[in-house]
Amino acid sequence: MTTSRDPFDIEDQGMRELWARWQPGPVVDVNDKDDGKKKNGAAFSLADFDPSAKPFSKGDKPDNKVLVQQIAEQLDPLQQLFYADRRFKLLVILQGLDTSGKDGTARSVFGEMSPLGVRSVSWKAPTELEKAHDYLWRIHQQTPGAGEIVIFNRSHYEDVLVPVVNRWITPEQQQERYGHINQFERLLADTGTVILKFMLHISKEEQRLRLQERLDDPSKHWKFDMGDIDVRKQWDEYQRAYGQLLPATHTPWAPWTIVPADSKTHRNLMIATLTRAVMDNLKLKFPEGNPQLAKFKVQ
Amino acid sequence: MTTSRDPFDIEDQGMRELWARWQPGPVVDVNDKDDGKKKNGAAFSLADFDPSAKPFSKGDKPDNKVLVQQIAEQLDPLQQLFYADRRFKLLVILQGLDTSGKDGTARSVFGEMSPLGVRSVSWKAPTELEKAHDYLWRIHQQTPGAGEIVIFNRSHYEDVLVPVVNRWITPEQQQERYGHINQFERLLADTGTVILKFMLHISKEEQRLRLQERLDDPSKHWKFDMGDIDVRKQWDEYQRAYGQLLPATHTPWAPWTIVPADSKTHRNLMIATLTRAVMDNLKLKFPEGNPQLAKFKVQ
Repeated sequence: MTTSRDPFDIEDQGMRELWARWQPGPVVDVNDKDDGKKKNGAAFSLADFDPSAKPFSKGDKPDNKVLVQQIAEQLDPLQQLFYADRRFKLLVILQGLDTSGKDGTARSVFGEMSPLGVRSVSWKAPTELEKAHDYLWRIHQQTPGAGEIVIFNRSHYEDVLVPVVNRWITPEQQQERYGHINQFERLLADTGTVILKFMLHISKEEQRLRLQERLDDPSKHWKFDMGDIDVRKQWDEYQRAYGQLLPATHTPWAPWTIVPADSKTHRNLMIATLTRAVMDNLKLKFPEGNPQLAKFKVQ
Repeated sequence: MTTSRDPFDIEDQGMRELWARWQPGPVVDVNDKDDGKKKNGAAFSLADFDPSAKPFSKGDKPDNKVLVQQIAEQLDPLQQLFYADRRFKLLVILQGLDTSGKDGTARSVFGEMSPLGVRSVSWKAPTELEKAHDYLWRIHQQTPGAGEIVIFNRSHYEDVLVPVVNRWITPEQQQERYGHINQFERLLADTGTVILKFMLHISKEEQRLRLQERLDDPSKHWKFDMGDIDVRKQWDEYQRAYGQLLPATHTPWAPWTIVPADSKTHRNLMIATLTRAVMDNLKLKFPEGNPQLAKFKVQ
């Protein structure tokens, strides 16, 4: 890591401890080649995390809404500083089932930043050209450059989740992909990328309400896809696949955060709070001024 | 590996044993996290490999020239079959000091293949955009797709060699990069890429002759760069850097071959012979015919 300090080791001890409770256990020990596999055991279950919890709440809903807006506005100058500093790259990965709020998070939390320095990538099914290459080929192309912030709406994690749920790959291939992904993210982190991975965790009932809402409002039909109903039928399989994936890819250089997301306001608040804390922790600074320039008078 | 058999485990036992003598010792044990480091010890030295040797020679120079042309012509239909089969990708990496014959190899060995299925990439100093990303970002983009053959003229190995020789990176970063590269190549190999890495090994005297030849013939001045003279002054440092790099990145999925390259004909013959053997070993086949199509009469 090119950082002088661990970007995830945030200074506020209370927040650090709170954050740890919303992570999928201890990070993977990469020197133990079977550790990822062990972590797929029964020890971890998404069901132990309450999707309606509000651990980062600071009051009632209106209070929290004001706070989200405040932090989003603070992220704007932080992004400018991040761009000027250029020592880092920031990759924010938003994962979660349909209606879990990936689009809404991108808009509410990162929407105040200048589009010059932040870029959002929504991953869909791969094209023929993309399928002719390894599954990280298209992902690598879209990773952030120096000073850039990139938001992934879905990500390479779909390349393990979907094949696992649909049994297109063997358990050995599943483990192999965790290894590929951990090593790929390590390369990114070693070369200055701060990786924040948020799993937006909603309840089955909340998803039902949100899908029904899309059906009841014709102006929301464009967001609805009959395929979402088929995926909803695989709810339990997806919970299990996430239960395996999260601990196996929870690394020191790219930790996961499980975000209780039944409340949209709380979801935004938690992601905004943690993003700001991590960015603050980078000790960003404008490059040194040039004394010659400071004396120069434009004629 | 998606292959049913190891593509490097060629059937001709005599050739296999001969090949092993021109590889940098045993492959890296990736389950031993310090193995790459250990392999950087004094055990391996490029000086033990004679640049004027001709281990793959089959007679005198005219005989060998005829043979190179024959094999090059056989590689053409093999490439067509490779393209139709689409189960594999082939990445041929040519490394070596200036004048070691990377361009000549591309032309003489792979020049008979159709440009539709083979692509050559010459790596130069990175652009500003490329430097804003990790050093494997631009490399990954140029890796072969299904059925494609890509020749790298220089490669990501320059991103270890040059910084090591010029002491731009620490020994820790050097080890870290070996790890990145081994894991990156593993991803490619796991997803169907056959990786052949050839180090074109010439003597210092042979390089002197070839550089002088470029100076003595004005029609070759375009190939000459005063920078080559500066790099030549670092001859010993480059030999040492290769001596560390080769064993540390000699993996089961992407083995190195040291090619004695003082003789251009022998260099071509050795690379052509091994490439054909590895491609033969893939047991390529045209996809199954369609019985319906076979009966169809075009009106």
